[in-house]
Amino acid sequence: MRRAMLIAVGSELLRFGRVDTNTQWLSARLNAAGIEVAARSMVEDDAGAIAALLRSAREQAPLVLVTGGIGPTDDDRTREGVARALGLELERDRARVSLLRAAFEARGYRFRDVQARQADRPRGAEWIPNPLGTAPGFLLAEDRRLLAVLPGVPAEMRAMFEASVLPRLAPGAPLAYRVLRIGGRTESSVEEQVQDLYGRDGVDVTILSGGDGIELHLRAHPGAGGEPGPRVDRLLAEMERRLGADLYSVDGGSLAGVVGSRLAEHGRTVATAESCTGGMLGAALTAEPGASTWYRGGVVSYSDDLKQDWLDVEPEALARHGAVSPEVACAMAEGIRRRSRSDYGVGITGIAGPGGGTAEKPVGLVHLGLADREATVHRELRLIGDRGLIRRRTVNAALDLLRRRIDGTLAP
Amino acid sequence: MRRAMLIAVGSELLRFGRVDTNTQWLSARLNAAGIEVAARSMVEDDAGAIAALLRSAREQAPLVLVTGGIGPTDDDRTREGVARALGLELERDRARVSLLRAAFEARGYRFRDVQARQADRPRGAEWIPNPLGTAPGFLLAEDRRLLAVLPGVPAEMRAMFEASVLPRLAPGAPLAYRVLRIGGRTESSVEEQVQDLYGRDGVDVTILSGGDGIELHLRAHPGAGGEPGPRVDRLLAEMERRLGADLYSVDGGSLAGVVGSRLAEHGRTVATAESCTGGMLGAALTAEPGASTWYRGGVVSYSDDLKQDWLDVEPEALARHGAVSPEVACAMAEGIRRRSRSDYGVGITGIAGPGGGTAEKPVGLVHLGLADREATVHRELRLIGDRGLIRRRTVNAALDLLRRRIDGTLAP
Repeated sequence: MRRAMLIAVGSELLRFGRVDTNTQWLSARLNAAGIEVAARSMVEDDAGAIAALLRSAREQAPLVLVTGGIGPTDDDRTREGVARALGLELERDRARVSLLRAAFEARGYRFRDVQARQADRPRGAEWIPNPLGTAPGFLLAEDRRLLAVLPGVPAEMRAMFEASVLPRLAPGAPLAYRVLRIGGRTESSVEEQVQDLYGRDGVDVTILSGGDGIELHLRAHPGAGGEPGPRVDRLLAEMERRLGADLYSVDGGSLAGVVGSRLAEHGRTVATAESCTGGMLGAALTAEPGASTWYRGGVVSYSDDLKQDWLDVEPEALARHGAVSPEVACAMAEGIRRRSRSDYGVGITGIAGPGGGTAEKPVGLVHLGLADREATVHRELRLIGDRGLIRRRTVNAALDLLRRRIDGTLAP
Repeated sequence: MRRAMLIAVGSELLRFGRVDTNTQWLSARLNAAGIEVAARSMVEDDAGAIAALLRSAREQAPLVLVTGGIGPTDDDRTREGVARALGLELERDRARVSLLRAAFEARGYRFRDVQARQADRPRGAEWIPNPLGTAPGFLLAEDRRLLAVLPGVPAEMRAMFEASVLPRLAPGAPLAYRVLRIGGRTESSVEEQVQDLYGRDGVDVTILSGGDGIELHLRAHPGAGGEPGPRVDRLLAEMERRLGADLYSVDGGSLAGVVGSRLAEHGRTVATAESCTGGMLGAALTAEPGASTWYRGGVVSYSDDLKQDWLDVEPEALARHGAVSPEVACAMAEGIRRRSRSDYGVGITGIAGPGGGTAEKPVGLVHLGLADREATVHRELRLIGDRGLIRRRTVNAALDLLRRRIDGTLAP
């Protein structure tokens, strides 16, 4: 049973801002037991919708876990949904009704007729005892397949999963997992370079792209090919060889964190001069604990007169080339380096949009400058996306430029 | 089309701690258009699993929206999953290949053969243009049913939904929906003040708390109680009366956006001097388009010597009171106001952790200063949370202080 589908029942889970923590928790526990989660769904309190999801889940995976919708009230519809999906009748367990009544009365509550619904189960199901509450769960086991239904209350769900479901899954060794991060590349160019390694030694590879760069996720299951850890490590070594300096982290570390570690190692400092990113580069660097040892500070020179006053950018450069130009980006980098007495100075100027673009200088045009003792280098970016994405990608590109400069791997 | 099912594709969405924001956002937008979401699912990059979910979704609801898995790489499997679920062939659109190639080459990228996969669509599908990226989406419309497939990149997904999907949903009587935002308060104090209004006139109220403040979501369905809009508006009026100046937005607008609008209305400008937030306040303000009319700039004076050099903070104040003190916060606010020639100056200094705390000045202690022509005000914060949360809450508190000062509602 190496593959599972998870379903959380409850109309409240479909409201904006609500996160279902039960399927998140179950995913982590199952992964740790070497079981992949193929999908997780949140579904309203509707027997038809529950049944439809359950049928498709059982087609896809031998293990299906459902949480929620098994209380006593009218909107608790999971029992009915399971019975429909499996073509089974619901039947009331008289002995269980007596147990429920006794549990209620022992606590001084009146037992209401609606409570007896919690003694209904699809024909052939086994009860899962609930050590923390009155509502039992139930499971249906057949040859190499298991469907378990647990309450939505997280503490009860977790206790019942640990005590009564996990032991039946015959878990093996855990998955091995690595997150690789790559800077300054497009998703497709990375994929082209490593695609032939996908699946080698039974290691799954997923590639992801976001505003913060490209990630490769490597995962191996315990199984025929030997221990998963060494298999992932072998693939990792080959990817490191191919990706070279573009690969900046093999443990999921952030780019700002890698930059900070490199600066700390070399005993160097950096300062930032930002225009279109408005402080985001400083914010990214100082998100790292201990940044004060290698980050000196920065300015957000949003107005042109402040670029002159605070960074000594020449008024002639602004007039002649415009604020968004290689000349001004480099002057900002040099100005902040000098004014902050840092080893590295980064300058950013660009057009983040939505307004302010022209044919010659469109939205998405960004100039980066990077000054150190030896030289000032410049990079031009032409980014796509909305204001937020252009700003994030700019910060990422500036961090990557700095990383390569520190490492001495910057192409001239 | 009053009922929808949402599917987010991406194996990374099944990892612990990952939240799919696309289906959350779509739920809110659909609700606002009077459409109920029956289920939302996250599914791995596997055509079989995608197809199984899609089939069950289409059984249950006339509207199905899918996000993600339509990029150029090998693990982008949504096209194949849709084709399988609907029993349609995938075909390559030659004209679209040429468009993709042109878009790549215009940006100076090489067009790789794998990119052409983005021109594949199930037979009979219409393209959905992508104004922010190269990957188009597609949709299949039949009599009273719609299946739309959008990219996973949130900004692209949102723009395409608004421009090309929403107008086809022929929305009827919408749900009435309002998002109220409240500053400078705890969740429980807000709840205590308005809890008796929950459910009045059939209006659902949900309260949410995050690093960016407290939100109240008001929802009313069309139905027995009369038009939903006026019912929500009546409840809103009562909440406005009770919450007073703490309520800063009744349309979900961000606090930075509200501050920017107020500054623009009054023709005033602001500048920022940040220490522990490292540029986050500047970044929040400049996230608003058009910020250059009211945001002059700022400094990140992370090192104490830069607080002296850039903001004229007296060395004696630093030595006597320490960098994290009311005196230094106020001197930073006054220094940045004077140096940037702004109407308002904000100063922030604090201990974000995890290190650097003492018994007298623990992690979470933050001082804010706010200077204008008339006076300099000070606020002390004692925040809980990790480094990220403390920094976010600090930015939020600084924005709220500025908002109340501009509005003249600041308690002395």
